[in-house]
Amino acid sequence: MTTIDFSSFVDDLAAASGRAILPFFRTALGIDDKSGPGGAMSFDPVTEADRAAERTMRQMIRDAFPDHGIVGEEFGHQAARSDYTWVLDPIDGTKAFITGMLHWGTLIGLMRAGRPVFGTMHQPFTAERFTGDGAGAWYRGPHGERPLAVRPCRNLAEASLMTTSPSLFPPAGLARFRAVEQAARLTRYGGDCYAYCMVASGQVDLVIEAGLKPHDVVALVPIIEGAGGIITGWDGGPAARGGAVIAAGDMRVHQQALTLLNAANDEG
Amino acid sequence: MTTIDFSSFVDDLAAASGRAILPFFRTALGIDDKSGPGGAMSFDPVTEADRAAERTMRQMIRDAFPDHGIVGEEFGHQAARSDYTWVLDPIDGTKAFITGMLHWGTLIGLMRAGRPVFGTMHQPFTAERFTGDGAGAWYRGPHGERPLAVRPCRNLAEASLMTTSPSLFPPAGLARFRAVEQAARLTRYGGDCYAYCMVASGQVDLVIEAGLKPHDVVALVPIIEGAGGIITGWDGGPAARGGAVIAAGDMRVHQQALTLLNAANDEG
Repeated sequence: MTTIDFSSFVDDLAAASGRAILPFFRTALGIDDKSGPGGAMSFDPVTEADRAAERTMRQMIRDAFPDHGIVGEEFGHQAARSDYTWVLDPIDGTKAFITGMLHWGTLIGLMRAGRPVFGTMHQPFTAERFTGDGAGAWYRGPHGERPLAVRPCRNLAEASLMTTSPSLFPPAGLARFRAVEQAARLTRYGGDCYAYCMVASGQVDLVIEAGLKPHDVVALVPIIEGAGGIITGWDGGPAARGGAVIAAGDMRVHQQALTLLNAANDEG
Repeated sequence: MTTIDFSSFVDDLAAASGRAILPFFRTALGIDDKSGPGGAMSFDPVTEADRAAERTMRQMIRDAFPDHGIVGEEFGHQAARSDYTWVLDPIDGTKAFITGMLHWGTLIGLMRAGRPVFGTMHQPFTAERFTGDGAGAWYRGPHGERPLAVRPCRNLAEASLMTTSPSLFPPAGLARFRAVEQAARLTRYGGDCYAYCMVASGQVDLVIEAGLKPHDVVALVPIIEGAGGIITGWDGGPAARGGAVIAAGDMRVHQQALTLLNAANDEG
């Protein structure tokens, strides 16, 4: 079986997706609410941009690789007749998107025989692209190109930690997250997919989240691993399943955080 | 007394400041810690970029307007021998900066007789500039230029709310902030100066913070007001003093949030 180079095809997907999304960014168009009226907790925005971008990418994949499977946030699952399945999240960070902020992106992941083998995070507004294949990872942005590499960090006490929002943890998970937060040097909220790319860039040491879907994380696995980092579930199992996920640039910090996340004296 | 057009001079300041800052962004250079070793609470990062940019801007101001005053985050206060004082924060959002994230910027404010009259927020990495003079406000970015205008929002229940981090409130302030958060439609953390610019852009309805310094807020006042919004202290007084600040796109949301922030049954 030959190895296919998907990188230029994924570049085309990202570019087409970006063209579909950008007309909706920072405009009054395209705001939707899947969950209907409700309080802050039930607010689940999704935009026309999301749907337009996923429709575009699905069509391009069907045309190029008709036997590949496709899993997307908006339009569900198309079964594979081969080893390959694409996992798409046109706008990861929809709340960042609808508030005009910059930490959102398009996630394009490729699974082979159930394992993530290629991934891209594309931010079309800032023209930034983070790409990885598990063995290497690369960045392209408005100020140039460079390889991505995590940074060493010996101790959690020296680590910078990110999570999208503490409100996204269930109560027991929040107590465990707080234990890690108290041990870390610095915590920042907000970020979605962008935070994981900062781990791959050697700018952040740790991202801890819960309640993720596979499409939130599959594309990020080959980027983190390609940059020399580690990404797993809180149980140490594969991150690609989604759920509770931890990404670290340094194995030692990953291990120290896992110990706290799985401590026996659960306060939740 | 003639009115001086400061906008092209401020453009020059922003450009020079950006050239001083960018070499330090997403590199291992320039990380400093004013507060020495300590836990997450005492971590107060400041970079070489901060100092280099402020030094550059101070020199340019002294050369062009030797009798103007200057207040900067890094190098203190130079008294004015005229009505004008510049208020500079080279990197607002230093924690965002050192984690490689995008929501930081250079704040350049100008006070006349104690009142903010001109302000710019410049993000040199994304090449975005938000500018206002209290009567109007403008955006320039990689995808074009446009005037800035707030959006209407009748009720807090429909409002999107931002704050940099709930950990930045003192306990009593946090309880009051939580009351507003529970009433709002959507809350996002992270943002620093960028969040205020999203109020001016009509993307966010409300920003509530505490513990600000004048250099964190002076430049933002003419942008918010120029876009049709309102920015005050929690007591309704001038925001330019710093401290506890609230910015809103719509007067009605501002009033409803102020009522909750000043409720008699203080839980803190």
